[in-house]
Amino acid sequence: MSARNGAALRVIPLGGLGEIGRNMMLYEQGDDVIAVDVGLMFPEEHMPGVDLVIPDLRYLLSNPERLRAVFLTHGHEDHIGALPFLMRALRDHGKPLPPVFCTQLTRGLVQVKLREHRLLDETHVQVIEPGQTIEAGSFSVEPFGVSHSIPDSVGFIIQTALGPVVHTGDFKIDHTPVMGQHTDLTRLAEVGREGVVLLAADSTYAEIEGHTPSEQTVADALDRAIGEAPGRVIVATFASLISRVQIVIDAAERYDLRVFVTGRSMVNNVQMARELGYLDVPDGILMNVREMQEHPDSRTVVISTGAQGEPTAALTRMASGDHQHIAITEGDTVILSSNPIPGNEALVDRNIDNLFRAGARVVYNRIAPVHVRGHAAREELKIVHRLVQPRHFAGIHGEHRHLVMHRELAIDLGIAEDDAFVLSDGDVLEISEDGAAIVDVVPADYVYVDGIGIGDVDHIVLRDRRRLASDGMCVVVVAVDRRRGALVGVPQVLLHGFVGPEEEELITERVCQLVASLAAGEGGRFDWTDWRETLEDEVARLLYRETHRRPVVLPVTVDAPSGERSGALQRSATTEE
Amino acid sequence: MSARNGAALRVIPLGGLGEIGRNMMLYEQGDDVIAVDVGLMFPEEHMPGVDLVIPDLRYLLSNPERLRAVFLTHGHEDHIGALPFLMRALRDHGKPLPPVFCTQLTRGLVQVKLREHRLLDETHVQVIEPGQTIEAGSFSVEPFGVSHSIPDSVGFIIQTALGPVVHTGDFKIDHTPVMGQHTDLTRLAEVGREGVVLLAADSTYAEIEGHTPSEQTVADALDRAIGEAPGRVIVATFASLISRVQIVIDAAERYDLRVFVTGRSMVNNVQMARELGYLDVPDGILMNVREMQEHPDSRTVVISTGAQGEPTAALTRMASGDHQHIAITEGDTVILSSNPIPGNEALVDRNIDNLFRAGARVVYNRIAPVHVRGHAAREELKIVHRLVQPRHFAGIHGEHRHLVMHRELAIDLGIAEDDAFVLSDGDVLEISEDGAAIVDVVPADYVYVDGIGIGDVDHIVLRDRRRLASDGMCVVVVAVDRRRGALVGVPQVLLHGFVGPEEEELITERVCQLVASLAAGEGGRFDWTDWRETLEDEVARLLYRETHRRPVVLPVTVDAPSGERSGALQRSATTEE
Repeated sequence: MSARNGAALRVIPLGGLGEIGRNMMLYEQGDDVIAVDVGLMFPEEHMPGVDLVIPDLRYLLSNPERLRAVFLTHGHEDHIGALPFLMRALRDHGKPLPPVFCTQLTRGLVQVKLREHRLLDETHVQVIEPGQTIEAGSFSVEPFGVSHSIPDSVGFIIQTALGPVVHTGDFKIDHTPVMGQHTDLTRLAEVGREGVVLLAADSTYAEIEGHTPSEQTVADALDRAIGEAPGRVIVATFASLISRVQIVIDAAERYDLRVFVTGRSMVNNVQMARELGYLDVPDGILMNVREMQEHPDSRTVVISTGAQGEPTAALTRMASGDHQHIAITEGDTVILSSNPIPGNEALVDRNIDNLFRAGARVVYNRIAPVHVRGHAAREELKIVHRLVQPRHFAGIHGEHRHLVMHRELAIDLGIAEDDAFVLSDGDVLEISEDGAAIVDVVPADYVYVDGIGIGDVDHIVLRDRRRLASDGMCVVVVAVDRRRGALVGVPQVLLHGFVGPEEEELITERVCQLVASLAAGEGGRFDWTDWRETLEDEVARLLYRETHRRPVVLPVTVDAPSGERSGALQRSATTEE
Repeated sequence: MSARNGAALRVIPLGGLGEIGRNMMLYEQGDDVIAVDVGLMFPEEHMPGVDLVIPDLRYLLSNPERLRAVFLTHGHEDHIGALPFLMRALRDHGKPLPPVFCTQLTRGLVQVKLREHRLLDETHVQVIEPGQTIEAGSFSVEPFGVSHSIPDSVGFIIQTALGPVVHTGDFKIDHTPVMGQHTDLTRLAEVGREGVVLLAADSTYAEIEGHTPSEQTVADALDRAIGEAPGRVIVATFASLISRVQIVIDAAERYDLRVFVTGRSMVNNVQMARELGYLDVPDGILMNVREMQEHPDSRTVVISTGAQGEPTAALTRMASGDHQHIAITEGDTVILSSNPIPGNEALVDRNIDNLFRAGARVVYNRIAPVHVRGHAAREELKIVHRLVQPRHFAGIHGEHRHLVMHRELAIDLGIAEDDAFVLSDGDVLEISEDGAAIVDVVPADYVYVDGIGIGDVDHIVLRDRRRLASDGMCVVVVAVDRRRGALVGVPQVLLHGFVGPEEEELITERVCQLVASLAAGEGGRFDWTDWRETLEDEVARLLYRETHRRPVVLPVTVDAPSGERSGALQRSATTEE
């Protein structure tokens, strides 16, 4: 695999750097582009009302026929969730949809999404397996197995004109995985001997010393917790953590318990994983609702969603006492087999407290090792670097600090400083025989999905929402006879999210007085030409003086040119809801 | 100390149970009440716009002359922050203010607050020391020293008619504290032999096995990090963590560095602690701004606020490049000597990423032991239980789950199940010679402080704010001639925080069409008597259909009874800001 003269490889992360989720990487050479992963991220606290955040597809859509194929590493939302948005955008541009390549379980999960978006028939999703090679334009791509917190995870060895690229995807090194998912160190060693041009490797855990523990340690802890529980056991975990579900089912079989599965995504995933042969479920161990209701609590295990405290998930509903079928009682043991994703800590803690209040015993990671994560810590990263021996390095998947630390690790292991990169979303890293450099930047903003709108919510809308949230709002509706230079009637004042009912009356009164005195030109400050601006400023000032709050003030003027009393505004209830 | 016949002790937590902060406990016997701590809590994510949360004082204010004294355990906000609100409420009720007792450093911190609230002259704050005894009505109260993350922390031994109560306040057991703050195990052993009627003990860390490490481990790690740093060092920590400041100053002296202090609360606390003798600062080691600017970076240590990612704190301003005096450069080392308080993780992570981007090396707890916390883990709690040997137990300070686990620990160590309590805010625990029980509940709601309003923001206002934040709002102003049963002019539609400018025009048009067709009675659905309700429902339905969002819809009707064209509404810009 020798380099063509003047050949260049361009590597463009459209997401997945500097934040969790929304993973998407483009590899380009000549006229060929392939995408690895098309993920989404869930909104952060400062994005109120946003449902999802997806990668910025403008660069790709500016020249969509170059996209030869999409490769997916594994079935987590942050790696596959935005695929339907990409496919829909291509279809809306009248472009043929590129083939999608992924392993079998990933395909099952992708197809659920494509069906929801009515794209299933149009999209060709082909199952691939480690060892196979897919030709995509001038690239050839070979998946290799990795350990991660969902079965059937792979990384990719991407053969380019400059030599192979190793793209790890999310991975850890687990020598005793529960579902046989080893990271293929042998294949990495082989390709390392070929001379790897670039290692693009998972950085999520680059700040953690040592090794991430094996899934087997969780199996032991969960088995013990389920075996020792005096009554019913409820295990909450990620719906995609199939190995964890298998551990619970194995424990249930060992202790002669029956299993009830709840939560839409958990029910769907268990069914799908079972059909595809990823779950080994003994006959008769699963119960439907009626069977569960008749089965003794002390012989029951429930597998549930809601481990992240998601407001509408099954465990959250149990914790707040409004799950349809399960009421927490004294003697229940709830196991949270997960860690809170950063930002979800408070939601998870609230669930734990509510479960304790309802009488349950709650077991979670701070008090027993009932979860391990799916990413490689520093010693594991070092093994991969040592085997792959890349000429160039760029960290993927992780916050900026993780990328910095991972780059330092790479340099410690012998890569030259000029060959190790910290990329930002949109950076174009160009690699040639002469070396590598960031040569360009393409658009890679957050694209917000809210309801059915994609990209119509921008930073300004979010800023407005944050301001509304902080102090609420005040709408002042005023009828004006401009000809006479006078108010008509009494202003209507609507307050929302600002003060309580008792204060509302007083504030309304004050605003009306202010409007009247402004209209009378008190103090010479009033200027009819800048009527609404004046109104906004003066009302805002009044409200701040009275309350030290800064609600959004929206003035509305109604032209009422009649000289008679007609057209007068009638005061009525100020808030409607 | 034998019990009077029929004597009863009532213990009432008004805060500090089930949530972090807002700590306040009442002890009552006969006509005497004493309060231990009067803290505030900072708002959680679901309380938009709220500045502070304070305890519900209604119960206390229903009979304010019974309050004999206030005792404060230590100078953290969650234990002293609401004192001015209590004092102000008493003054507003025309009641004499009770004396406040606390140690010297706590007094310094309390006085800063009282000055801000203009209550300094009216409030009598008396310094007490371990070993002293204060008579307060029929109680006598003796402070005992404890280790915690601020100097001069104490717990209280409260002598009652039933025997002594031990109220620990926040504490840990640190055998090698940096500033000589030992937890007085000897005094606890003595009082334990007397026969303690109730142990009310810190539960914050009741879920953590083992021991909380000593402050000395931080001293070693910080010393090493400062000594090895190639350039300027910036250490961010809590302004109240005086021992941490001492550690940094000691290291600076050892390595011949000079120190610049930044951040208002840090500057104030360092000055105050120095004046009161809590900080040992060698002459000439501190620099003012001009000295710092002329001093070589490589010989400079900065002590800063902002370790929690607070948006306006010094370190956050450095991270985002708008600190007045300090610009982060390549070669800087930033040490976060703190852990994120639950809920602040995302803010802290953002700071870390920004500091890395600016070129700094960032050292924080996940990568070096530069922080330990101030609360006792399970093995420390066991020591206190064993020494105090109380007849009754109630956990204080901690979330509900911590209180449950602490109670279980107490039972494991030999307390009868009926004598160990998990209290909720407002519970009245009554203890007599015959036993103990929760006999009543008094009001103990969240009281929100927003701007200068105390308690005028309630759950409904916050719910409105959350809804505004989620999808924004839509105000529809419509002029109606009821007599003729017709619209006058074109409606005004104001959208805010809902959609971007491009979609706004389209949505506005649709709403106007809807209003027109409603007014025309299309489909017979329109009913003039329920005009506004209809408008609200139909507009909400339209907006959901178009966008799948649910903004707050506020209809405003203007009566325009004129038959002519006068009184018509003029369309104008829809959003003003």
